Amino acid sequence: MKKHELLIIGGSAGGIQAAICAQKHHGLKDIVVIRPEVKAMVPCAIPYIYGTLGAVERNIMPDKLLGEAKLKVGEVVSIDRKSKTVTLKDGEVLGYNKLILAIGSNPVQPPIPGIDRKNVWFVRKHPDYLQELASAMDDARHVVVIGGGFIGVEFADEICKRGHEVTIVELLQHCLQLVCTEELCIRAEEALKERGVKVITNNAVKSIGGNDKVEFVRLESGEEVKCDMVIIGIGVVPNTKLAEEAGLEIGSTRSIKVDEFQRTTDSDIFAVGDCAEKYSFFNGQPVPVRLASVATREGKIAAANLYLPQWRNIGTVGVFSTVIGQTAITMAGLTDVQANKLGYDVVTGEAEAVSKHPGTMPGAEPMRVRLIFDRRSGKMMGGCACCAMTAGEVGNIMAAAIVNGMTMEQVALFPMGTHPWLTATPLGYQITDAASDALHKTKKVAV
Amino acid sequence: MKKHELLIIGGSAGGIQAAICAQKHHGLKDIVVIRPEVKAMVPCAIPYIYGTLGAVERNIMPDKLLGEAKLKVGEVVSIDRKSKTVTLKDGEVLGYNKLILAIGSNPVQPPIPGIDRKNVWFVRKHPDYLQELASAMDDARHVVVIGGGFIGVEFADEICKRGHEVTIVELLQHCLQLVCTEELCIRAEEALKERGVKVITNNAVKSIGGNDKVEFVRLESGEEVKCDMVIIGIGVVPNTKLAEEAGLEIGSTRSIKVDEFQRTTDSDIFAVGDCAEKYSFFNGQPVPVRLASVATREGKIAAANLYLPQWRNIGTVGVFSTVIGQTAITMAGLTDVQANKLGYDVVTGEAEAVSKHPGTMPGAEPMRVRLIFDRRSGKMMGGCACCAMTAGEVGNIMAAAIVNGMTMEQVALFPMGTHPWLTATPLGYQITDAASDALHKTKKVAV
Repeated sequence: MKKHELLIIGGSAGGIQAAICAQKHHGLKDIVVIRPEVKAMVPCAIPYIYGTLGAVERNIMPDKLLGEAKLKVGEVVSIDRKSKTVTLKDGEVLGYNKLILAIGSNPVQPPIPGIDRKNVWFVRKHPDYLQELASAMDDARHVVVIGGGFIGVEFADEICKRGHEVTIVELLQHCLQLVCTEELCIRAEEALKERGVKVITNNAVKSIGGNDKVEFVRLESGEEVKCDMVIIGIGVVPNTKLAEEAGLEIGSTRSIKVDEFQRTTDSDIFAVGDCAEKYSFFNGQPVPVRLASVATREGKIAAANLYLPQWRNIGTVGVFSTVIGQTAITMAGLTDVQANKLGYDVVTGEAEAVSKHPGTMPGAEPMRVRLIFDRRSGKMMGGCACCAMTAGEVGNIMAAAIVNGMTMEQVALFPMGTHPWLTATPLGYQITDAASDALHKTKKVAV
Repeated sequence: MKKHELLIIGGSAGGIQAAICAQKHHGLKDIVVIRPEVKAMVPCAIPYIYGTLGAVERNIMPDKLLGEAKLKVGEVVSIDRKSKTVTLKDGEVLGYNKLILAIGSNPVQPPIPGIDRKNVWFVRKHPDYLQELASAMDDARHVVVIGGGFIGVEFADEICKRGHEVTIVELLQHCLQLVCTEELCIRAEEALKERGVKVITNNAVKSIGGNDKVEFVRLESGEEVKCDMVIIGIGVVPNTKLAEEAGLEIGSTRSIKVDEFQRTTDSDIFAVGDCAEKYSFFNGQPVPVRLASVATREGKIAAANLYLPQWRNIGTVGVFSTVIGQTAITMAGLTDVQANKLGYDVVTGEAEAVSKHPGTMPGAEPMRVRLIFDRRSGKMMGGCACCAMTAGEVGNIMAAAIVNGMTMEQVALFPMGTHPWLTATPLGYQITDAASDALHKTKKVAV
């Protein structure tokens, strides 16, 4: 049995980032990344395989990122913390000095009768599975997507491009409701409808019917939606089995408990990404924010802290983005609903302006920004941007404001740069203007 | 003579923003904005009149932004601080309680022999002048642009689109050299050459020759460039005449001296925008950063402080952007050269990744980011981004990092959001990776 300095279980975003940083930071040579897939998928682009990209092999995360870390394809079935070894399915045993768990999550499989029928699919990150889904989709015509979160919405939008008929069924009042303000949810639903997607909300799937293969979906409302394929994207459950069986503590969001240094309850074992518990930047409480961007950040932190606690995780600020047709939507931090739940007294501000200036520039389109602030401290808690394709980076400006505790005043006077091709006019820059709007509502000094 | 609560002299970006904020903030009804132009140009988009926009009237700043403030077209020729009045060219006298000077700047007119020849133009913000320039350009074929700063570069790029032959003549080693790193200057020059612009650097214009009309430009090197039109864009001088004659103090950059509340040496008179002195965010020293975005920020501050000093100007952080062909370039804060001049010991970090992910997404193109940090404090001092059309907002993320004093470590662990259509991959997000690169070079903890 060979003992390795660092084993990383899981080779998606969090695992790869940890391998990169362990090399950069500690100059480690003896790193082995173990994962069941020969090739890793770019997780956030999986929906795009089925439209824009057109093929599974166009969505591969390049393994050259691993540098000198070795990739081992295999499935770890157990961890022995006493002997500091892991055992693979084929019986091989590998030793470790330090271990990072980046074992991700699995799709939620709801207890819907008929879920085992043929042509009912989940969003798994395995390339072979996704290839089978691609082949099956070639033969499908009427697809029902269960779940109107980011994944479901993006799948629906992409499948549409193939000319398939697509219906989304969402349990809540709106698609994207868990992370978006109502206004954005409605915008997203409108964009989906424009693309030809049928959107059914506030309704649950009661059963999946058919003979051998799926033929329809029956809703709580009684409605029956004919289909020859179902894709279920209603969320994920952290993959904690290995950790639990190894006696590591599991947190309240059913994720592997970690401290602010990404250490599990065994100080030689770290956990990052979807499998690891996350704590809110705002109040330190566990939050179920599972994103590749969050996973890579945790991978960096874990790698830096392998031998000595050096980097503290200041907490998770979710920045979610999606694009439906030509409508980009980004949310950073808390929504009003979330902030109110945490007990904040919230002030909001809004602004809209065209994304280029003057509005006569080709491609200029309205971009709307909404910011939320804590009335007491004035600090920014969250924000959203809707429309132009710069929305993703605009969300990152918001994230910068949030983590730095910028107040309404500071955001209103933020020294942004502007350019006719690249941004709104300086007289109507959305982020500063939305902060001014919020200030005005507090009847404090409004600029 | 009517006495008004607030007079604003100048109705471009800074003046209009001040009028907006004085209404929002103090509820002022009696505001008069005086400017010589019937319509104000969007200043940063003036070059686009001659290509992309195609007409002066497609580049108008909408006066509805003024709200209830009254617009008066006229030229103020003097200010009497004792009687608190201003006098217009036609003899009309208006009184004020508070006065904001937003009188801008004028093009530098270098003492080049032959500068008075016909078809030698400057970049003035007056619509009639710009309309004459447009008509003259219709008849021109060979245009020489003197000055390779942002304005010159954008003019050259736009005029090319009309099929004109364009030559830029720049005094310094490179175009954009005063605000860009050498690498970006070279990128910009390459982009210009790809567009068909002839770029001559490190060379001065000795004379402008021809008969009545310009026929050629003679360079220091002896070279003669044939042309039938010359556009001079080598910078601006603050318009201080009114202020100087009124006895207000003028600062070391030949701009109207203001304090951190935008007050001139007369506490009832404020100055904002190109005419007002600016102080560096980094060391408080005067800096000649003249941008519409900076002007609007100062307009907000002046308006808020009319009756009581409420908002301090934390200093100017320049964020410059330009687009040449499909190459967007943004600079925020200091360049290495600037930081070194101020005495900082600088650490730089670089990263490049495609602007969408995976790289197979349509329209993905490499975007390069370079950040500079102060080695001693670790704080971010500046950065640049080059390529994709998100560069403008990426520059604003940098501005947020700079004004919040974020360190290498904080930037490396910045909780950015990512999305396949909107940003680089979380495994190669340029800003965080460039900060990691800088950290690595300091041989401190590198993540």
